[in-house]
Amino acid sequence: MKKKGLSELGEFGLIERIRSQVGTTSSLRLGIGDDCSIQTIDGSLEILTSTDLLIEGVHFNLSWTDLTQLGRKSVAVNVSDIAAMGGTPRSLYLGIAVPPNLSIEDLDLFIHGFVSAAKEYGAVLAGGDTCRSSGPLIISVTVQGEVRQGRGVTRSGADSGDLVFVSGSLGDSALALKLLQDGEQPAAELAERHHCPQARVSLGCRLAESGLASAMIDVSDGLVADLGHLITASAKGAIVQLEKIPLSPFFQNSLPGHLERMELALTGGEDYELLFTSAAQNERNIEQLADELNLSLSCIGKINDDGGLQVLQEDGSLYPYRHSGFDHFSK
Amino acid sequence: MKKKGLSELGEFGLIERIRSQVGTTSSLRLGIGDDCSIQTIDGSLEILTSTDLLIEGVHFNLSWTDLTQLGRKSVAVNVSDIAAMGGTPRSLYLGIAVPPNLSIEDLDLFIHGFVSAAKEYGAVLAGGDTCRSSGPLIISVTVQGEVRQGRGVTRSGADSGDLVFVSGSLGDSALALKLLQDGEQPAAELAERHHCPQARVSLGCRLAESGLASAMIDVSDGLVADLGHLITASAKGAIVQLEKIPLSPFFQNSLPGHLERMELALTGGEDYELLFTSAAQNERNIEQLADELNLSLSCIGKINDDGGLQVLQEDGSLYPYRHSGFDHFSK
Repeated sequence: MKKKGLSELGEFGLIERIRSQVGTTSSLRLGIGDDCSIQTIDGSLEILTSTDLLIEGVHFNLSWTDLTQLGRKSVAVNVSDIAAMGGTPRSLYLGIAVPPNLSIEDLDLFIHGFVSAAKEYGAVLAGGDTCRSSGPLIISVTVQGEVRQGRGVTRSGADSGDLVFVSGSLGDSALALKLLQDGEQPAAELAERHHCPQARVSLGCRLAESGLASAMIDVSDGLVADLGHLITASAKGAIVQLEKIPLSPFFQNSLPGHLERMELALTGGEDYELLFTSAAQNERNIEQLADELNLSLSCIGKINDDGGLQVLQEDGSLYPYRHSGFDHFSK
Repeated sequence: MKKKGLSELGEFGLIERIRSQVGTTSSLRLGIGDDCSIQTIDGSLEILTSTDLLIEGVHFNLSWTDLTQLGRKSVAVNVSDIAAMGGTPRSLYLGIAVPPNLSIEDLDLFIHGFVSAAKEYGAVLAGGDTCRSSGPLIISVTVQGEVRQGRGVTRSGADSGDLVFVSGSLGDSALALKLLQDGEQPAAELAERHHCPQARVSLGCRLAESGLASAMIDVSDGLVADLGHLITASAKGAIVQLEKIPLSPFFQNSLPGHLERMELALTGGEDYELLFTSAAQNERNIEQLADELNLSLSCIGKINDDGGLQVLQEDGSLYPYRHSGFDHFSK
């Protein structure tokens, strides 16, 4: 059966089709269908905003991911930036340029993934823009969230002596991608980390509300690059203990015979875990928070006054990682 | 001289280069360079948000427009949505995917156009995302603005008997595009209407603050399509008098021998004028507002109870326009 084309539905038919799947929230006075959305905001809150582009062939490969997963991931990577400030996501805006080979059914799967992930994070699709693409599938997502005034956690507040923590485990997403690129099939749990990352919204909120985090960033470009951004913004240095970097059982099992893969946990990117700093006296509170959230929070190093980032091996020697993280324009 | 490539500057070098050109505003607590921007907002205001995609080969052609113009237009088309609600633009978010043939100097021109247009509208570039594109230049812009609580003008408030007004003149942008597509060189003033449209922010604000507009939309898809959106949202009909449609001298001069071009003023799109409705008793107030703003505001028709939109010629007969406006997915 030939799949129905977008030209039969039309631009405004597509918008109506999306609108019918979308809910609303109390602060959204007007959503999809006018020139702008209208939102009210409590004066005691501040607005957080972030935007991301996801482009076929650059950020994703449709032969590796299904469209529902892609819809979910488009939300998660964007919401992760709200989590990294300690905020709560509220509304999402989706720009999508659709190549001719994508059917309405394909788009429905994408929208289904997008809308259901948004709902799980407590956010709503509040507007967007649709057009055709003669080349790749292009997705642009903007998220707005809120945080109590003055509570947003920036990258720049790390102090000398602060401990460095990271949630969950690192390297799984990059390992899954490497296996896919090598023509191997990653274990389902590993593939899930790459195709369906989770934004750590609850953790971010708790860290912001409690004041426990002095600085925070999400790990999207890789631990080394993102900790680099954090210490640059804070004008500090950091030492990371290689053996303290949290690894999943899947990642650990893949290391024997492939020790070079350890680098994926340092520089691989797309983990979407939260990396944050906290004064040393807070260590017990952070352990308690990990228990409450049932999420591992590993202390992997310490902030110091010296510029630069050093990754040390157990014997005290420098670990010589090669890449400094993902740069979209590097050769 | 070979132009410097983006791979030498790097993603974070580019972001720093953009950041150095950008100012700030009092409500923007944190701009480019963290996971999110942070904004404060007065509790008496509401937030307006809109997003647009602009894709090379779909929305623009780099052999017809220069990059400074493109930067300005990227801002104007997005800010126009804020104007169409009667709001004031405050912050812009720019996603840009850069093909390899674009140099840093090209990007500088784009950013210069973008940032200077933003400044003229009282807005600031507050965040974004950059990556490479293996295909077209891709631009995604999200704008946030503000409007006094309850003052935002939607598409849905038109009432039977309301007059229909439009600012400026219609069809110039579409005529310029048609001439370019036909290999002709449009007059500079006409080309300017296509490459550097102006968002009617002052007009939108005045209409919202005064309560004069019962419904409003910007003319981006063409008069017929956008008035169609407005009456659909308002559950009304409308009659437009063809001879009352405002045309620029350039447009009028091009009509002899090409009467079919009249259709461009009805269905051409990308005018970015404001189309609004107002109770008949307000006609004098709107004339006065036009004088104050030194901007023509033409009464072109009337809202009625019947569904549908009719365009009447001077002799009372129906004008048989063929297209119903721009649809990105139409064949």
